Amino acid sequence: MNAYDELLKHTRKTALLSNVLNVIEWDERTKLPKKGGAYRAEQAAFMAGLVHQRNTSPQFGEWLSAAESELPNDDPTADAVVVLRQLRRQYDRKTKLPQDLVEAITRASSIGQQVWAEARRDNDFARFAPQLATMIRLKREEATAVGYIDSPYDALLDDYEPYETTKNVAAVLADLRDHLVPLVAEIGASDRRAPVEILHGQFDVAKQEEFGKLAARSIGFDFDAGRLDVTDHPFCSTSGPFDVRLTTRYQADFFNSGFYSILHEAGHGLYEQGLPAEHFGLPTGEATSLGIHESQSRWWENLIGRSHAFWERLYPAAQVAFGPTLTRVSLDDFYFAVNESKPSLIRVEADEATYNLHILIRFELEQAIIAGDLEVADLPAAWNARYQEYLGISPPDDKDGVMQDVHWSAGLFGYFPTYALGNLYASQFFEACARDLGDLDELMRRGEFMPILDWLQKNIHAHGQRYRAAELVERVTGKPLSSAPLMRHLRAKFGALYGFA
Amino acid sequence: MNAYDELLKHTRKTALLSNVLNVIEWDERTKLPKKGGAYRAEQAAFMAGLVHQRNTSPQFGEWLSAAESELPNDDPTADAVVVLRQLRRQYDRKTKLPQDLVEAITRASSIGQQVWAEARRDNDFARFAPQLATMIRLKREEATAVGYIDSPYDALLDDYEPYETTKNVAAVLADLRDHLVPLVAEIGASDRRAPVEILHGQFDVAKQEEFGKLAARSIGFDFDAGRLDVTDHPFCSTSGPFDVRLTTRYQADFFNSGFYSILHEAGHGLYEQGLPAEHFGLPTGEATSLGIHESQSRWWENLIGRSHAFWERLYPAAQVAFGPTLTRVSLDDFYFAVNESKPSLIRVEADEATYNLHILIRFELEQAIIAGDLEVADLPAAWNARYQEYLGISPPDDKDGVMQDVHWSAGLFGYFPTYALGNLYASQFFEACARDLGDLDELMRRGEFMPILDWLQKNIHAHGQRYRAAELVERVTGKPLSSAPLMRHLRAKFGALYGFA
Repeated sequence: MNAYDELLKHTRKTALLSNVLNVIEWDERTKLPKKGGAYRAEQAAFMAGLVHQRNTSPQFGEWLSAAESELPNDDPTADAVVVLRQLRRQYDRKTKLPQDLVEAITRASSIGQQVWAEARRDNDFARFAPQLATMIRLKREEATAVGYIDSPYDALLDDYEPYETTKNVAAVLADLRDHLVPLVAEIGASDRRAPVEILHGQFDVAKQEEFGKLAARSIGFDFDAGRLDVTDHPFCSTSGPFDVRLTTRYQADFFNSGFYSILHEAGHGLYEQGLPAEHFGLPTGEATSLGIHESQSRWWENLIGRSHAFWERLYPAAQVAFGPTLTRVSLDDFYFAVNESKPSLIRVEADEATYNLHILIRFELEQAIIAGDLEVADLPAAWNARYQEYLGISPPDDKDGVMQDVHWSAGLFGYFPTYALGNLYASQFFEACARDLGDLDELMRRGEFMPILDWLQKNIHAHGQRYRAAELVERVTGKPLSSAPLMRHLRAKFGALYGFA
Repeated sequence: MNAYDELLKHTRKTALLSNVLNVIEWDERTKLPKKGGAYRAEQAAFMAGLVHQRNTSPQFGEWLSAAESELPNDDPTADAVVVLRQLRRQYDRKTKLPQDLVEAITRASSIGQQVWAEARRDNDFARFAPQLATMIRLKREEATAVGYIDSPYDALLDDYEPYETTKNVAAVLADLRDHLVPLVAEIGASDRRAPVEILHGQFDVAKQEEFGKLAARSIGFDFDAGRLDVTDHPFCSTSGPFDVRLTTRYQADFFNSGFYSILHEAGHGLYEQGLPAEHFGLPTGEATSLGIHESQSRWWENLIGRSHAFWERLYPAAQVAFGPTLTRVSLDDFYFAVNESKPSLIRVEADEATYNLHILIRFELEQAIIAGDLEVADLPAAWNARYQEYLGISPPDDKDGVMQDVHWSAGLFGYFPTYALGNLYASQFFEACARDLGDLDELMRRGEFMPILDWLQKNIHAHGQRYRAAELVERVTGKPLSSAPLMRHLRAKFGALYGFA
């Protein structure tokens, strides 16, 4: 075998292991008996160690170098070129990090999440602060080890949104902010109120599951190659080319929590099911970035699942499923209810319009923190000031303020912007899809979701990591990323709902 | 670290992996999406390969030899002595098998099971015969490679019932047969008939699960360290010291299938939960033999779960759970129904008395096959003749005759006798338990199952592999294994039910 084939074989075998790790992590979050946690943690750590060893082994490095010198490099989108580019990227990043630092971050993340949970429970930011400061120091060290051109934050962002730069993201998100803050204010000034009490009736959990699966199946999720289970914090997990698992959580007295988690995770799942199975375990069979992944979840959750046309198709089934609760509720009222927009404190409960401002606040603050322009002690005040400035509200305490998300305690700096990028990508793709397929509302009204899914598969899923996220956007939409499509969508939708143009 | 500590560390790490393998195999049989099978098979094979490598590595062999020479060997039941004895046993067995032979058996097992399933479906023994002949040849080679004193069958039996000999098992089972065949004939001659139609009413599946969990919990199964799920062929699987998973299958119009599978698997599960957690992954924390394991399942399924006293306690709850179906059925009729005894063709549906004759037939035939005294072509006729002789019935075809079990197609020669050994061990332990605790029926009537479970934990579970099965029997009961306790139990029970002394 030549070096490239050795490399592929090795990489596919490593994927077998990392996907076993995915199975046991899925199991841990959905099925594991209460007392099984400690041993499972040992199993997961050992498996992760095996995967890491294989990904950073000198033998792997030798095959990689040999394959790079063996292969022609003319077409940047040829399978082998893409595979080598991405494996090189991962190998360099992983081998640049000293083992000591990796272990220190793992430890700080584990302790950090525990301290965060306790400090949050007791609304005691001072207790969390030293742990957070340690993590920030370690993440700066990580950035130094990995290397960067402009700023340390670039190195962290690049881990989640490969090849993207702080400068570029900051420009697009600043533009978004400048248009979104006034829109949110306009919505707030409207005297119309969404009839949200509709969504707080009786929603039988078994019926929610049945209806959620019906919706996921309608948009093309293949339950012969996937599952739906219950968990605390919904996620989507892949363990094989035909094994994609969605999770949700149900509230028996609230519709949105269970249903929109299913649609959101099904969006992730459709991307995973749409990746080319024959490339499974190789970069050409993997998602190109977290932001692109998030664009797929937001596409189905919001652009489709919160559209009037979607509910024209699905609402009759919802009325059957949720018997007396929805029988006398009109489609228009239901549609308005699932689209209530209102400034709120908690990111994960935010609506389509205000959500991105929650992300902006975190993105701006974490850049300042990593750059050393903001001290940990000053973070709560900075957080509250920005909530006041962008959303017109201020958290009553740090529990539901600066300590609401687990991310920073786990060292996930640079992760938040991928959520907003997902919304931006989704809207820009959606306009391109409408350009290609015509009236998407009309397709949805007829329940023809398959042409839409086919479009996504052909234009996005099929490519794996062949195109970097920014290249994919240009290729599919003809333009670089911009906030304009998302703003057009939000303004049209909420203008109509809240009565302004 | 000294060699013994290195050995322990290595063995515990290998256990992490083999228990991850258990998780993914449990998942495969209970949760895996339909299309996920092919990739899961690759994952399992790769994981099994890693476990095998670790179990047979030269480094492991060196530590083992060094530890053996390091440690004193005076007390044969000291932890270290037991651990080294068992690790040596496993290491020698595994390293004696040539890699070629291991792979040939794995392949023959995989193909064999497929061919068996098709041949069985089409009632075509001739199609299965060549595959079976291949497997028999390979298992003889395995016996030669492993080594034996008396007969090749010893080497195969020893894989499932360590340290046991064909000669000894054959003597006990022949004795059992000589007493059991007449008892079965006496039962058949009775004019009493069990009212089995009771068990074929409406048994809501959700209620079956609820009632089955109630029963499992009553006898001490800890659902905070275990689960119950649905599968095709019930099994019990362990993935960690506090992660023991039961499975069953439900029929909405038949009580026994779901319920007694739960009790049976819970019996296995109680053994697993009773093994000392601090020794998990080491021989001192593992079951000592398949026969002893089976004794625990049969104990709870039959000796407890098919006793009159058990149902005096549980029947009121069953009547509540299975509303109209059982409301007008008396306890005595229900008790008789779950204890119907009648010669039948299918092993897995056989009752407490006739079951052992099914095993005897297989045990006698597989000894003859491995010894070369019986040709594959003559197997169906030999099978049918023995059914006629022991049970007084003869299969109408090979599908429900010689081809009914998967075991031989998978190469599991020497496995069947552990089922009968389980019944024998269980009855002999049960008499010892009654000797120590007094009236077990009275304990059951009061729902006091915990003293019984404590007795099992103290006398059997706590020891792991400290004692070989035969030593354990002698130690707990004061006598070598005999068919007398089982025969006393069967004669007393079925004599009373069918009206003879």
